[in-house]
Amino acid sequence: MVNEIEEKIEKMRHSASHVLAHAVLKLYPDAKLGIGPAIDNGFYYDFEFSQPIEEKDLKAIEIEMKKIIKRKLQIIQTFMKRKDAIKYFKDICQDYKLELLKGIPDKELSFFITGDHEFVDLCRGPHIQNTGEVGVIKLIKTAGAYWRGDETQKMLTRIYGACFETKEEMDIYLKNIEDAEKYNHRVLGKQLKLYAIIPEIGQGLPVWLPRGYTMRRILENYMIDLERKHGYQHILTPHIVRGELFEISGHLNFYKDSMYAPIKVDNEDYYLKPMNCPAGMMVYKMEIKSYRDLPFKMGEFGTVYRFEKTGELHGLQRVRGFTQNDAHLFCTSEQLEGVINETLDLLDIFYKDIGFDKYRFRLSLSDREKNPKKYAGDIQKWEIAEEALRKVLVARGIKFEEMPGDAAFYGPKIDVQAVNVYGKEDSISTIQLDFNLAERFDIKYIDENGQEKQPFVIHRALIGSFERFFAFLIEHHAGDFPLWLAPDQVTVIPISEKHIKYAKEIYESLSGSNIRVTLDDRNKSMQSKIRDAEKLKIPYLVIIGDKEIETETVSVRSRLNKEIGLMKKQEFLDYLLEEIRLKKHK
Amino acid sequence: MVNEIEEKIEKMRHSASHVLAHAVLKLYPDAKLGIGPAIDNGFYYDFEFSQPIEEKDLKAIEIEMKKIIKRKLQIIQTFMKRKDAIKYFKDICQDYKLELLKGIPDKELSFFITGDHEFVDLCRGPHIQNTGEVGVIKLIKTAGAYWRGDETQKMLTRIYGACFETKEEMDIYLKNIEDAEKYNHRVLGKQLKLYAIIPEIGQGLPVWLPRGYTMRRILENYMIDLERKHGYQHILTPHIVRGELFEISGHLNFYKDSMYAPIKVDNEDYYLKPMNCPAGMMVYKMEIKSYRDLPFKMGEFGTVYRFEKTGELHGLQRVRGFTQNDAHLFCTSEQLEGVINETLDLLDIFYKDIGFDKYRFRLSLSDREKNPKKYAGDIQKWEIAEEALRKVLVARGIKFEEMPGDAAFYGPKIDVQAVNVYGKEDSISTIQLDFNLAERFDIKYIDENGQEKQPFVIHRALIGSFERFFAFLIEHHAGDFPLWLAPDQVTVIPISEKHIKYAKEIYESLSGSNIRVTLDDRNKSMQSKIRDAEKLKIPYLVIIGDKEIETETVSVRSRLNKEIGLMKKQEFLDYLLEEIRLKKHK
Repeated sequence: MVNEIEEKIEKMRHSASHVLAHAVLKLYPDAKLGIGPAIDNGFYYDFEFSQPIEEKDLKAIEIEMKKIIKRKLQIIQTFMKRKDAIKYFKDICQDYKLELLKGIPDKELSFFITGDHEFVDLCRGPHIQNTGEVGVIKLIKTAGAYWRGDETQKMLTRIYGACFETKEEMDIYLKNIEDAEKYNHRVLGKQLKLYAIIPEIGQGLPVWLPRGYTMRRILENYMIDLERKHGYQHILTPHIVRGELFEISGHLNFYKDSMYAPIKVDNEDYYLKPMNCPAGMMVYKMEIKSYRDLPFKMGEFGTVYRFEKTGELHGLQRVRGFTQNDAHLFCTSEQLEGVINETLDLLDIFYKDIGFDKYRFRLSLSDREKNPKKYAGDIQKWEIAEEALRKVLVARGIKFEEMPGDAAFYGPKIDVQAVNVYGKEDSISTIQLDFNLAERFDIKYIDENGQEKQPFVIHRALIGSFERFFAFLIEHHAGDFPLWLAPDQVTVIPISEKHIKYAKEIYESLSGSNIRVTLDDRNKSMQSKIRDAEKLKIPYLVIIGDKEIETETVSVRSRLNKEIGLMKKQEFLDYLLEEIRLKKHK
Repeated sequence: MVNEIEEKIEKMRHSASHVLAHAVLKLYPDAKLGIGPAIDNGFYYDFEFSQPIEEKDLKAIEIEMKKIIKRKLQIIQTFMKRKDAIKYFKDICQDYKLELLKGIPDKELSFFITGDHEFVDLCRGPHIQNTGEVGVIKLIKTAGAYWRGDETQKMLTRIYGACFETKEEMDIYLKNIEDAEKYNHRVLGKQLKLYAIIPEIGQGLPVWLPRGYTMRRILENYMIDLERKHGYQHILTPHIVRGELFEISGHLNFYKDSMYAPIKVDNEDYYLKPMNCPAGMMVYKMEIKSYRDLPFKMGEFGTVYRFEKTGELHGLQRVRGFTQNDAHLFCTSEQLEGVINETLDLLDIFYKDIGFDKYRFRLSLSDREKNPKKYAGDIQKWEIAEEALRKVLVARGIKFEEMPGDAAFYGPKIDVQAVNVYGKEDSISTIQLDFNLAERFDIKYIDENGQEKQPFVIHRALIGSFERFFAFLIEHHAGDFPLWLAPDQVTVIPISEKHIKYAKEIYESLSGSNIRVTLDDRNKSMQSKIRDAEKLKIPYLVIIGDKEIETETVSVRSRLNKEIGLMKKQEFLDYLLEEIRLKKHK
């Protein structure tokens, strides 16, 4: 039943894409057609226009589409001989269709005809009976798209449309898009002045602006404290590293595509490090370790550089340089469960403190029965590790998805997945075993009997990368960060010039108590100052006027326009400190 | 009179170098001689040995030298004809001397003969009368040295010796060397486990180990707080930047030798940034600034990469990648003095807090009357800036050296210079005007009349680089850092197993009060634990035995073996917190 409905909707959306192409040819007779499938929530079609079109041109196309829909034109399937098909598309100069014909076997040369040959498209179908069955449509946006997704080919114009059976469904969808746009970290990142992509500096290389950098430092210091309390030590390694190290680690072999070209120094190749691990292994090896030193936990806020195609870059979510809250844990097999458990404890504390709860767990395992040669390291260790990961997840009552065959070649892993406002999923935290580096770097410890043994080596990144995590954090909170994280916690707003002196006193007193406070003594109206503070989503606004001076109070309003009212200075400070201490969030 | 004494000592040291060569030829008849001058405190001579010699071989050479000195052999000058000189050195296979002959005019072919032609050297002199006049000598070390200082030539073995008139002078000198070795940051850096140079990672690319990184974070957070209190905002820019930016800034033109080779990304050149300024200028330009926004102070802990020759690298003092406590200040000409004054205030606070007092100020000015074309920017601005820098230094009663002609082409500057344990000087802090970037990036603000104006742009780095500053800080304190900076502040040492429980309580309680404390519960003797803690120069050791448990106290000893005695737990904590709060140092 569900499938039938889904099929019907997909047919409708597919037909809507034909209606779009049909409408475009009416308005732009020399447009060349690419392809036009149904997609989630609607459809698209790729065109080559002789003159570039803009978003504002979509309205006219939409009107034309609605006319075609109203006319309830029949959509009928037919088949052509190859030579007829070629002649047809040659006559109407549809070169892309001619190219498509080449890839289709003779007997599958299926076409759909709208109305009395008003519009004919090469298409497998299926379609609805007539254009009147197309429900509610709306053209959403245009985007560039390479012909056949190939960067060496021509860039076409893709027109996206939404299509639903009812107006109600369309309205919900449009509201969701609007919200996504509003919560989109690229929009909020700019509005809240958190970060910037500056073309002269480079794509995919975000600059942390003062308000974003303040949050990042808070989170860094928070994480260092949390990890130190759990026995971590922290190091810092350079951003360029000798090629030799990546030969030992194997990265130059299996990871080269994500690495940047080498830099010659003294006739030797140095590389921007794509991972912190190899340098971390060298630090572990500096001193001989005994079983008494295990578990050995070594963290690094390591900035790494990895190549991503320009088209893949997306705000802070997908970048070319990013800083991981990285750590390497070395432990015995007896300690393995305990170490994984502690890591998940830290993850719980961290997610709770930042108020992040939209994620799911994924356990990636090997399929070593099927592909024994795919994986590095000792089979027994894989068994111990996979069992330990699963056992800990089950014992904690965590829901997770098992993905056999999705492990890295070097070890199984637990990933935490989150979804952005557009529905795109990414890993935000990870716990990975690594049998490969342990072997390649000959990582050892001396056991109780004086024997050399290989410990388990675990990579883990709670804040997978500050950049990507911030993207999710911004969208999750829609910019309304918990007070302890907010870059500015309070703004003091004197109503007029005669209130500035007392406002300054309040400012100094809050600042002296380590509250991140700003004083807005600009010569502007109170309303416009409030608007500016609200645009920055500053958690608390303090208004200072005659009444406040008289009564030695402050007038407090919380973000989102909630009036809290008059408070004594100390009362307000205690209120703030308590909210910070408890790391409260909405 | 002074000159006469100095000349005599120099002659003596020069003759000592001849005695060295003489002794070497006795022990290694096939050694080839390079050159051998007098230097500060002694002399050296360069040799090519057929078999490499080691430091332990120096003893035998020294004994041979002492024999020659005892024999009081005459040293007499003579002159030879070129062809005789060539024949002489050809017969004894001294190729380097033959090469030296070529560069000397006929009439200056002077030689010095020791004893009855026992040793003959091509030399201008002057020398002492006989070898008996050489005072007290001691061979110090060997080092590699390229023939004629040219990296493309052969590497010779340089033997260094000290030479003084009296044993007392020699003893003082040797004590100084010993101290220098003891306080040398490379020795202490290893002993205190602060940083490491790991060959597989790369020369000049230090790794911050946990204890060093802890100190660095403390200093970073200290500096951010200090700067924030003075109205600074902080940003973070990426380590690789598009070449275009360095074309705008001019670095690709005038700074290329210090930059690494480009990295191709999407067919464009990216560079490891050698300076943070260009990216900082772009951030200033993101929003239009008005006079109300000035002074605008923007800091960055920016990591930069600059090429240094391998031979120039020295521990943390001279490296290839380092992080500056960088900032750019933008101000009007009326604000200039105030801004420089505030910067020097911060410098005072900072130096006082870390207990650093061995430095001197240098004011580098233009010589634009002589070389008007050497400098970028408007002459009037140079005048205002140079006058402001001088005026502020004078008004603060700072002693400084004026260096006309030492300004950068882009602006005058104040440098703070420090000297390492070997007497080598480097800049540790700097305040520089920059007229070049202001122009190249078209840096503007809107003045009171709505007119665009160019502000003064100042680079300043209080902690010039964390790496270099640490080198000086380690040597200055000989590793005994002020308590607030020390990576571990306290170690708790239980005397035996039965004391571990109480020791743990003390450890937890101190740790809970944010003291950086370690617990040494290893199965080792108290004495050996104390030795290990002293090696790490941990400020306070807390010994826990029966007495301490009975009386609910802790037994405290301070580093350098000062017994402080029994203290109540809270009393000890208060004592620590007070020392930290006051940022006390020796």
